[in-house]
This record gives sequence, structure tokens and C-alpha cells, in this order.
Amino acid sequence: MAIDREFHPPERLLLGPGPSNVETRVIQAMTAPLLGYLDPVYLQCMDDIQELLRHTFETENRVTFSVSGTGGAGMEMALVNLIEPDEEILVCVNGFFGERIFEIVSRLGARAIRVEAAWGQPLDFEAIERAFKESSARIVTMVHAETSTGMRQPVEHLHRLLEIRDALFIVDAVTSLGAHPVGIDRNRIDACYSCTQKGIGAPPGLSPITFSDRAMEKIRAREARRQSWYLDVLLLEKYWGPERVYHHTAPNVMNYALREALRIIQEEGLEARWRRHERNSKAFVAGVEAMGLEMLVAPEHRLWPLNAVRIPEGVDDARVRGRLLNDFNIEIGGGFGPLKGRIWRVGLMGANSTERNVLLLLGAMEQALEAEGFKLKDSGVKAANDFYSHSR
Amino acid sequence: MAIDREFHPPERLLLGPGPSNVETRVIQAMTAPLLGYLDPVYLQCMDDIQELLRHTFETENRVTFSVSGTGGAGMEMALVNLIEPDEEILVCVNGFFGERIFEIVSRLGARAIRVEAAWGQPLDFEAIERAFKESSARIVTMVHAETSTGMRQPVEHLHRLLEIRDALFIVDAVTSLGAHPVGIDRNRIDACYSCTQKGIGAPPGLSPITFSDRAMEKIRAREARRQSWYLDVLLLEKYWGPERVYHHTAPNVMNYALREALRIIQEEGLEARWRRHERNSKAFVAGVEAMGLEMLVAPEHRLWPLNAVRIPEGVDDARVRGRLLNDFNIEIGGGFGPLKGRIWRVGLMGANSTERNVLLLLGAMEQALEAEGFKLKDSGVKAANDFYSHSR
Repeated sequence: MAIDREFHPPERLLLGPGPSNVETRVIQAMTAPLLGYLDPVYLQCMDDIQELLRHTFETENRVTFSVSGTGGAGMEMALVNLIEPDEEILVCVNGFFGERIFEIVSRLGARAIRVEAAWGQPLDFEAIERAFKESSARIVTMVHAETSTGMRQPVEHLHRLLEIRDALFIVDAVTSLGAHPVGIDRNRIDACYSCTQKGIGAPPGLSPITFSDRAMEKIRAREARRQSWYLDVLLLEKYWGPERVYHHTAPNVMNYALREALRIIQEEGLEARWRRHERNSKAFVAGVEAMGLEMLVAPEHRLWPLNAVRIPEGVDDARVRGRLLNDFNIEIGGGFGPLKGRIWRVGLMGANSTERNVLLLLGAMEQALEAEGFKLKDSGVKAANDFYSHSR
Repeated sequence: MAIDREFHPPERLLLGPGPSNVETRVIQAMTAPLLGYLDPVYLQCMDDIQELLRHTFETENRVTFSVSGTGGAGMEMALVNLIEPDEEILVCVNGFFGERIFEIVSRLGARAIRVEAAWGQPLDFEAIERAFKESSARIVTMVHAETSTGMRQPVEHLHRLLEIRDALFIVDAVTSLGAHPVGIDRNRIDACYSCTQKGIGAPPGLSPITFSDRAMEKIRAREARRQSWYLDVLLLEKYWGPERVYHHTAPNVMNYALREALRIIQEEGLEARWRRHERNSKAFVAGVEAMGLEMLVAPEHRLWPLNAVRIPEGVDDARVRGRLLNDFNIEIGGGFGPLKGRIWRVGLMGANSTERNVLLLLGAMEQALEAEGFKLKDSGVKAANDFYSHSR
């Protein structure tokens, strides 16, 4: 049974929904000497991460740190701490990750009131308002950046609604943090989680999370026991805070990588980083539309880091993605659920949101589409180049 | 607020309860190109890990993989899938991690029947048997390797007992797997979890886990919903199995490291690896006893990878550990709970279980103890050297 093979994976350009490629200095950070979970030097690394995450989340929240699990662990952590059994929760669903929130809310024994829109369509604010007023919900969940559709749901207009009943607002920013503005404090978001492998620019493995003081008050006051020990925020805040009470053995090298990735964000500046993601997304869209393809999401709701392109009639999804992977070492994502075989999900995230990658991918797509017999309307590469030269 | 500092941690020799240092080739494995979570090359890496873990766990269990979280996530995963609310569970407690199992069992709404022994003392088989027969428990939990005390609880004699009621046996092997025999199949263990940063020889971040077919049957048949989505083994087996159904974005670089660490175990051979840990532990014990110190645990119950030394009267715990850390860049662990200030926990685990480290640590301890005014009975280094020359 011996596994004798060395592991030498090919150099993929990861332009799917994540993981995305990361800067070399982030990889190098993982090779620093290992430290114990209470080593004073490691505790300083943890403090740096908290401060850098507050900057990235745009928050003053004291309870802001990285969960020792992937984005899904962050989602479960936000929900398991805040949601009590039998409580009514307003769950906004317009894609796979909204469904996942619904699934976890149900497992926790709470009663989810669903507000829905089709996958790729924005949720209607008035429908949310109506459902909220008709329910007794004191928690609203929303996916800011739907990884399954590339849709951005505005989180800016809920203040007024939430204040009616002093409700808490839980937001999934797995595919937006570090690439698209989220704005925890100015949007009155009470709990928000993300991942490391998309807009943040680190390998997958951790989930940045933040809780408002209001959220922490509710957690401290709740009567039902929190079902999870691993994701218990009241235990974790004692390890990340000045008490330094042992909870679990920290995944140190992952946090080294996260610290370095967050420093890159700090150096670039949040605003400049958002503009870079916006510009490359728009150039890519100009390219695919010139080729005669269509985007799934309306312009005002498009996520810059994740771009969903409709697969044209008669073009084979798997064959095109296989060609990109095998001929060009480029990974893009397919759709799933109702969008399986109907869209490609193109990530231009973190270090991968570059002019070079946009041109390379459009060139490769032109070749793969032509091999499928698809007649290009115009050159995508040319359109993107025009976009870049006009937006300089 | 800018975090301008580069992160250059000192080169610690990690001889505490873990993390332990790892071989350079394991660190190098983390620098391989990133892959998507459904990339065929990554799927092969997952298959290799499953096969290598079966070898390390000594099992044929199909459901054997790495959890995307630390050892605590593995513990919660074993419990949350197997334990139903209101069920009676026999929980063996003789240290901090037995207490943690009790804590999680309670959070899950089950009724824990405790069988206890003092920290550092073995549990009495007859007491377990009595409690089991008096209860309706169909699950028994046991910590094979108590990280808080360095005690090994024999797991070899429970067959007969478990068969009375066809009960399931959950074993915590966080501090033994890869360093001390666990023997899943031959000891009729139904669920077992570990970590990566101790006997396995990789950085912390993942938890190897295995479930027997019997355990999987119970999970499939249970009526109550599993409270955790992140740790749901029925979803995870579909990602690790041939279906390859997306569950979460795999922490790829951590799994690269785990694969390489497991290959090192395969190359060394399990039996040779156990003997290496045994030999270095015994040499260390010979050294500390020669110096006039005492071990916490009786010889037949000592864990080879984790050695608990009683702190002699009048010696200051923190000052000795501080001196080892600051003068020698050596980390050893302190005690906690009832053993706080009373023991040092010395890890000789994975790549760190070497003759060189034993001699270095004993030499450094001699200096640190003398600085405390402790009068050494004899040279620990000499005693260890004698041990090594006689055991060649």
C-alpha cells in the first residue's frame, strides 16, 4: 500500500470561487519557526491579527479573531452562539449559502422564516421588511456575497428595520471581505464571518469573525447552552483576550499566513484594493460581453471578486473547464444546484485580481469556446484592453 | 495602528505538550502550489491521506480522514455524530481531557455517567465494569493518552465489557497516535480522533479521525438531528468518498503537510517509531530520576511522547520554565487544574523524540534547577547516556 510518490502538484492559476493563489511572502510566512500556543511571541502574532482584522472588517469590535476552521466553521460559529432553540430567525435565501444558513438554523432547533429570491436575483427589501414585521424574529441573516451566484446583496439599508425590534444582523462575507466593502460598524452588522482563501489572500483553513458588543450581550444573556464547545465564542474570547485561557492548540502556521496576508491588505489600503477588484472585474465583464456571452447578475449587484458568466447554448461546460485546466492550468468554477451546467464562476480575488490574469483567461476562453464551435462576436481580449486603456 | 513589524519568531525547541517541531520536508510540503478542492490532483492527495491514516490508526475503517480543525474539533466530531440527546453515556475521567469530553457530552444534552480516578491515576477496570452494568449506556468514552497528566489508560481490555450490550467505544488518542500503539481494530475502537502536531509530526490544524462500520450504522440510524453541520460525518464522508460532494473548501496546505508527515511515519515503520519514543522517554526518565526528581505517573502507565515530572518542593515552576525558554529557547509545558505548579509536561514527540533533545533538555534542566538552589542528586545527562549505551 506504500505511498511512495512525492507530491508535486502542477502550478494552477486558480480563477474559481476559491482557493485563490496567494503572494509568495504569504507562503514564506508559513515556513517561520513553530511556536507554542502560549508563547509570548505567538500571543503577539494573535494580537496583530486581531488589529489587522478590525481594519479589514472596518470595525471597532473587541471580539474579532480567526476561527480555527474554514468559512463554514465561521458560519456555524456565528449561528450556534447567537441562535437559541425555538427562536424565530429571519433567513434570507437566494443561493446555496443562504440555504446552508437555513440548514444550520434548523439543526440548532430554531424556527427559520425564509425570505427568498431566485438564485442570482437580489432580495427585495420590502419583502424582508414585511416578513420581519410579521415575525417575532430578533435575528436577521443575510449573505452579502453569494459564492454560488456571484451576487452581492446590499447590506446598507437594514438599520431602520433592525432598530424596530433591536434585532441582530448576521452577515456572511465569505466572498467579499478584502475585495468588496462590507463595513461592519457603519452597516450595523452584529456578527460577520469570512474565509482566508478569497479576498484576504491566504490559503484556506481559517475563518475571520467579528461580534458586536450587542451580539456578545445576547450571547452572555442566553439561557440555552451553546451546543458547540469548539466554536464557543465565550471560551475563545478568553484565549484571544488578555486572560489567555487555553482552549485549543492554535493552528499557528495558518495564522502566520493570515497575519502576512492582512499586512498586504494594510499596505495596499482597503479602498485601493476594492478599486483594483472593481476594475479587473469590469474589464473581464467587458471582455466576455464583447465575445457574445452574458453575465448572470445585473450590473449593480455584481460581486467584483466573483463573476458568474452564463454558459452559451450548445457549449459543453465540463469540456470547456477541462480544456482550461489541462491546456492552460487554469481552474474556473462551475455552477451548482439550479445553476449546474448553466454558469461559470470566475474568481478574480486577492492576488489573482490582476490585468495579466484577466487577459490570460479571456485569451484561453476564446480558444476553448472556438474549439466548442462557438462563434465569438468579437475579441474579448481586445475589449478588455480597450477598457483598461480607457480607465487609466 | 499599522503593523509594520516583520514576523521572525525565535527558533524554539518545542518540548511541551505540542505543537512539536516538525521535519523540514513537512514544512516544505506546505509550499507546494495551491490546488482547488475538487482538483483531480488534490483528490489524489486526499486518497493518499486516507490510506496513510488507516495504516497509522491500524484500521481497515473506510471512514478515516482528517477533520478541518484541531484535535478539539475531532473530539466534538466523534461526540456530536454518535451521541443522541438524553442518551446515557459512560464517560471515563482522570484528567482535563476526560473533563472536556464530559463537558461536550453535557452540551449535547446526553446524560453522562462519570467513572473517575485522580489526575495521573489509572481508571480501575472493575469500576468501569460496574458503572457500565448499572447504566443503560451504549457508548463508553476513554482518553487513551491524557495530555494533562502524561498518563496512558489501557484500552486493550474493554472488548468483553462492550460486547455485553454491543456498546460503542470512543477513544481520544490526541497525544498517542503515531507515538504509542493505539490499535483501532484489534482493540475494537469505534471512533478515534487525534491531532497533527504531536506524534504525527505536522503543524497543528487538522484532526485525524476514524469511525468503524458499527459507528457509521448507529449514526445513519439515529433519530435526532446531528447538531453540527461543519462536523457532520455523513456529509464529510461524501466529500472524502467517491461521490466527491462539496462540503467545505479544504485546508489544502495543511493536508499537504499531513500527507508528508504520514509518509515519514510509513517510511520509519510504526513499530520502529513506537520503540524510538519508548527509548527516548525511558532515557529521559532515567535522567530526571538520577537528578532526584520524580515522575507523576507509575512506570506501566507512562506515555512515551509526554512525560510528566513532579516539580520538587521549593522550586519555582514559572522561573524554571522562563529560564529554559529565554536562555535555551526550549519550551516545556506546565501543569493545569489540580496539577498547576506541581508538574512539568515534557513532550518528546514525533521528530523531537531524539537522543540529542533528551541530552540537551536534561543539561538545561540541570542548570535551571541549580540556579533555583535545588541540589541535584546526580547528573541527569550522565544517567541518560548510561541508559543509551546499555540499550544499544
